[in-house]
Amino acid sequence: MFGAIDHIGVAVEDIDEALKLYSEQFEMAIQYRETVPEQGVEAVLLEVGDGHVELLRPLGPDTPVGKFIENRGVGMHHVAYRVVDVAAELARFKSLGLELIDETPRIGIRNSTVAFLHPKSTGGVLVELVTPADH
Amino acid sequence: MFGAIDHIGVAVEDIDEALKLYSEQFEMAIQYRETVPEQGVEAVLLEVGDGHVELLRPLGPDTPVGKFIENRGVGMHHVAYRVVDVAAELARFKSLGLELIDETPRIGIRNSTVAFLHPKSTGGVLVELVTPADH
Repeated sequence: MFGAIDHIGVAVEDIDEALKLYSEQFEMAIQYRETVPEQGVEAVLLEVGDGHVELLRPLGPDTPVGKFIENRGVGMHHVAYRVVDVAAELARFKSLGLELIDETPRIGIRNSTVAFLHPKSTGGVLVELVTPADH
Repeated sequence: MFGAIDHIGVAVEDIDEALKLYSEQFEMAIQYRETVPEQGVEAVLLEVGDGHVELLRPLGPDTPVGKFIENRGVGMHHVAYRVVDVAAELARFKSLGLELIDETPRIGIRNSTVAFLHPKSTGGVLVELVTPADH
C-alpha cells in the first residue's frame, strides 16, 4: 500500500540551472543536497508540500542517469511512492510477478530505504519505493 | 507557490491493463474515470494518499498523448502541482519569461482548473498547474 507520492525524480544536466527554475521561479525550498558517487549522481531535494522534487545530475555519461539522459533527454526520471516497509512491498510485488531492479532494499539519499521496480513491469514508469529515514 | 504534487500523469495504451497494475497490484483506489474528447483522452484518477495517479489513454494517434507515446513510448507524461490560483501563477511565470502552453486557465478533468507550462522552459518536464474543483 502506497502512502503518498513521496517525490518525482528529474534528470538534469546542470544543477544550478535547474535550481534557478525550481528554487527561484517555482519557489520550492531546498531541503537537502548530496553527492552519491556509488549511484553516480548529485542529488538535490526540494520541498513541495509534504513531498518533494529530487533533481538528479549524473556524475558522468556511464552512470544510470547519464545513460537515461543520453537515451531520453532531460526530464522526469522516476516516481517514488512512500511505503512503510520496502522489503515487504518488494516481496509482495515479486510474488505478483513484477520485475524488480532491487531484490532487497538499499540505502538511498538522506539515509532513506529504497528499491526500484523495473519499468518493463510498470508500463514504462521507473517506480521507486521509499521509506524516508525520518518517517 | 506550489502546495503539493497533485498527481503524475501516465500515458498508457491500454487502460484495463494499466488498471490491473495500479488498482489490483499497487492497490490504489479508482477515484474517477472520464473520457474527454476535446483533449483526445480517456482518463482515470487513482488515489495515492492526498494525491493521485492520472492514467491517460489517447483516443487516437493524432492526439497530444497519442503523439507523446509515438515519440517517447508509454510512461510518465506530466507532473501536476496544486496551486490556489492558476491564473495568478500563469501571470507570474509569464513575467519570468517561462513559455506557457495555456495562456489562460482551462477546465481539466473532474472540473478542475488547469494550465500547462511548456517543457522547453522547464527542463524537459511537462508541468501542469491545477486547482481541484473541491479545493
